[in-house]
Amino acid sequence: MADAGPAEPSKNALKKAAKDKEKAEKKAAAKARELAERQKKETDDANDVSVDSYGELPLCGSTDFKPTNIPRESLASIAEHEDKTIVFRSWVVNARVQSAKLAFLNLRQGLHTVQAVVAASETLSKQMVKFCGNISTESTIVVHGLVKKTKEPINSATIKDYEIHIQKLFIEAKAEVPLPLQVEDAERPIPSEGLGDEDEKATEGGEKPIVGLNTRLNNRTLDLRAKTNQAIFVVKSGVCALFQEFLSQKGFILIQTPKILGAASEGGANVFEVKYFDRPAFLAQSPQFYKQMLIASRFQRVMEIGPVFRAENSNTARHLTEFTGLDMEMEFQENYHEVMGMLEDLMLFIFKELNARYKKETDLVRSAYHVEEFKLPESGKVPRIPFKEGIKMLREAGEELGDYDDLSTPQEKHLGRLVLEKYGTDFYVLDQFPLAIRPFYTMPSPADPLLSNSYDMFMRGQEILSGAQRIHDSKLLDKRMREHDPPVDPEGAGTKDYVQSFKYGCPPHGGGGFGLERIVQFWLGLPNIRMTSLFPRDPIRLMP
Amino acid sequence: MADAGPAEPSKNALKKAAKDKEKAEKKAAAKARELAERQKKETDDANDVSVDSYGELPLCGSTDFKPTNIPRESLASIAEHEDKTIVFRSWVVNARVQSAKLAFLNLRQGLHTVQAVVAASETLSKQMVKFCGNISTESTIVVHGLVKKTKEPINSATIKDYEIHIQKLFIEAKAEVPLPLQVEDAERPIPSEGLGDEDEKATEGGEKPIVGLNTRLNNRTLDLRAKTNQAIFVVKSGVCALFQEFLSQKGFILIQTPKILGAASEGGANVFEVKYFDRPAFLAQSPQFYKQMLIASRFQRVMEIGPVFRAENSNTARHLTEFTGLDMEMEFQENYHEVMGMLEDLMLFIFKELNARYKKETDLVRSAYHVEEFKLPESGKVPRIPFKEGIKMLREAGEELGDYDDLSTPQEKHLGRLVLEKYGTDFYVLDQFPLAIRPFYTMPSPADPLLSNSYDMFMRGQEILSGAQRIHDSKLLDKRMREHDPPVDPEGAGTKDYVQSFKYGCPPHGGGGFGLERIVQFWLGLPNIRMTSLFPRDPIRLMP
Repeated sequence: MADAGPAEPSKNALKKAAKDKEKAEKKAAAKARELAERQKKETDDANDVSVDSYGELPLCGSTDFKPTNIPRESLASIAEHEDKTIVFRSWVVNARVQSAKLAFLNLRQGLHTVQAVVAASETLSKQMVKFCGNISTESTIVVHGLVKKTKEPINSATIKDYEIHIQKLFIEAKAEVPLPLQVEDAERPIPSEGLGDEDEKATEGGEKPIVGLNTRLNNRTLDLRAKTNQAIFVVKSGVCALFQEFLSQKGFILIQTPKILGAASEGGANVFEVKYFDRPAFLAQSPQFYKQMLIASRFQRVMEIGPVFRAENSNTARHLTEFTGLDMEMEFQENYHEVMGMLEDLMLFIFKELNARYKKETDLVRSAYHVEEFKLPESGKVPRIPFKEGIKMLREAGEELGDYDDLSTPQEKHLGRLVLEKYGTDFYVLDQFPLAIRPFYTMPSPADPLLSNSYDMFMRGQEILSGAQRIHDSKLLDKRMREHDPPVDPEGAGTKDYVQSFKYGCPPHGGGGFGLERIVQFWLGLPNIRMTSLFPRDPIRLMP
Repeated sequence: MADAGPAEPSKNALKKAAKDKEKAEKKAAAKARELAERQKKETDDANDVSVDSYGELPLCGSTDFKPTNIPRESLASIAEHEDKTIVFRSWVVNARVQSAKLAFLNLRQGLHTVQAVVAASETLSKQMVKFCGNISTESTIVVHGLVKKTKEPINSATIKDYEIHIQKLFIEAKAEVPLPLQVEDAERPIPSEGLGDEDEKATEGGEKPIVGLNTRLNNRTLDLRAKTNQAIFVVKSGVCALFQEFLSQKGFILIQTPKILGAASEGGANVFEVKYFDRPAFLAQSPQFYKQMLIASRFQRVMEIGPVFRAENSNTARHLTEFTGLDMEMEFQENYHEVMGMLEDLMLFIFKELNARYKKETDLVRSAYHVEEFKLPESGKVPRIPFKEGIKMLREAGEELGDYDDLSTPQEKHLGRLVLEKYGTDFYVLDQFPLAIRPFYTMPSPADPLLSNSYDMFMRGQEILSGAQRIHDSKLLDKRMREHDPPVDPEGAGTKDYVQSFKYGCPPHGGGGFGLERIVQFWLGLPNIRMTSLFPRDPIRLMP
């Protein structure tokens, strides 16, 4: 090959040179723009009368930030501060720039939202208006603002008669953009009773996105910010507090029984196994055995609020693998109806106080889900319907079932409708269940050996409690365990101590266990039990 | 062999015949005796004026036993019934026949014991006296008796000024003889701080048997009947109730966070594995991540009372593998000392109300265990001792340790004694712990990068709470996780959702977690934490 002289520039090389030139020019232009902007900003900043009134605060606690010790107010008491400047923390529901001189923010604190205005003036810069109007949704801020009465009620906020005229605004914690879930979207009802598999965003009336339950639960931290969700868990906390308040007044003490057991006690099915150092152990399916053993220990009246674990592979709208049991057990003097009476009075108290103390939260959730009021008997007397009578009512309504058959879920719901019609109540008791469908420790009925001294409680046709008189005599218990189908070994590792404890003079006793999440679900009329658990667990979901 | 004629009766056959005759005679004699006894009993029964006033009741609830609906009284209000007949359920502490005409019983109901007398008269038969004086210890009975003022105080009962003159007595539930453990023996202190391996019955002063902790825990149903034990669990129930009462007044809501986790989150060690259908899961070592995620969800103030699981193979007097966590978490406005202040006020409230509402139970236990009163600062101000200052105090007292070293348990106890000397209090706070010995989510201190905004609380020189300001910024959290020794993966299955939740504008927050059993242990001054758990769990014990 011959030595080649300097080659003509190729087409590609020419293209490259042109590009490079273009790039260099762009870069220079950008630099010039940047410089101009910086100069403008410096001039603006120098002219910014509000320079100390807005901005991002340093990370609280991580630097030597001096506390101002200025009291922070609650928006709940805004009316007390009319025409005064208050300081409060809140978060941004939305912010929008109206013009160079005006921006509006919708701010939230708890269940309250308020409109805030930031307007440029001699003492408030346009830069600050721009800053405030561009804060990302869900950021946490501290506001200094004047409380002013509004001329017209503000429909977009829960506080309608007052607005905030912003004087200072600092970001404490900025929210990322975009959010994986809009809190606003989480305020709308979930689409159906289903598990939320309909996860693509559907639209309702072609406008607002509907977010499926799975998407919500996957982004639970944001989902829980929805007002309806906050209200659900205030009600749930309330049910716990009321349960304890009523029973402690009646002399019940709060107990904690073990959740890790050395042996599966209540039958081997539906129990989670734990690796306990070098041996197997099991998670408690209920505090049943222990609360009875404590009655045998003379505790007389005990209650427990604690997690209950069920390894049931049920993917329904009313099952969880981990839920909260509200348990009670008490000795009675002569008849197990004393226990039923205690449970009825307890629930009537809870309902009454939910209506009194948690009306706002209850109404908020029910109205979002278009749920009817929860009806209670006008007489104040809870219907105690013998199981046999319930069967009869169902048969007369066309259901086919035998005297000692268990009710299916649809039959239970059907009975609920019949009871509501006949007695005008969403809360009632079924008494004297067939012995064969109850646990082995249930006391047989003196009236009919095929029945038992046991009861269930229902809300809106769905079971919330199962309870009974328990066998307090070790000999009868032993016999019933052996007779049971399938038989239970009274000498087994998980039953021996339990049976033993009834050999030392145990008083007659009974009790029951509520599912806390079910009470909340049926009180509020929610379509899915997962909505009543902060971080629900089912056969599929273990996260977050 | 020749055919043999009828044989002479053998020696053996003769013996047998003699035996048979003897047997027949014995049988006849026994029959005659039995007949005579039955006739005597029939005559006696016919003459027994008390035949309807004593005996064993049919098993309550199992037969068609008609309730009497006679009100049952509490021995607490015995003074109101002087010279009146009352009906009450109680159990037999002991019963003894004094003579054919007189028997004494010591009866118990809750923490009360009362002396009961049954004396033969024209209207009360000797048979009834004999029956009453022979009832087995721990049997449950129903008594109809006249309340009489005593001439001399009765030292053997807690009710000293009244006794019961028995008119009727029925056994409701008979206790087996012999009992595996005498409740009376369980009233005495356990021998040592040890684990109760000293299980053979020792004697104190050569007289009364001392029962080791293991024997007690193996027979926990009986052990728990001891008055000291009943008092411990009334106090424990009280601490829970007071915790909730104080915090709910401060706006905290009660939450339930999941105990089954999809991934081990707080480091992989010390965690129990669960078989969750076809995959592994883990038991929560604390509600830490979840309570913080709820602060990120704007719950503002949350509390939880729930089981906490630690797979620590520690067989000490102060560790359990399952205990009750009293947790709280709150946002604060400017400084994490707001949270510390809340925790101090909470504990001062609990101590004050324990002294007011649970004095009887507290005194009962402390006197059995010879424990000193729990001292609180006279000024009402809880000492907040900087960790550095604590180190200095220990060094001046001869301990050798570096500025950023963790304290050993003996050093903590030593510091407790020094603080008691200097400040006159058994309750205090250590503040600003070294960063390196705290969890990765702890906020570093603005004062010294080797310290952190974290604190522990102590009772009688032992830790009851660990708490801190948490990092509420996902970037700093991410950095601290990677820097941590050992490093934690911010993208891990157990940490991803947690880190994520701080991207949406989480407010600054802090909190802490108490061990409920430790509060009870150190309040009462008990030598072993197992005594404060109804059915304790440790690496060895999983039963009952």
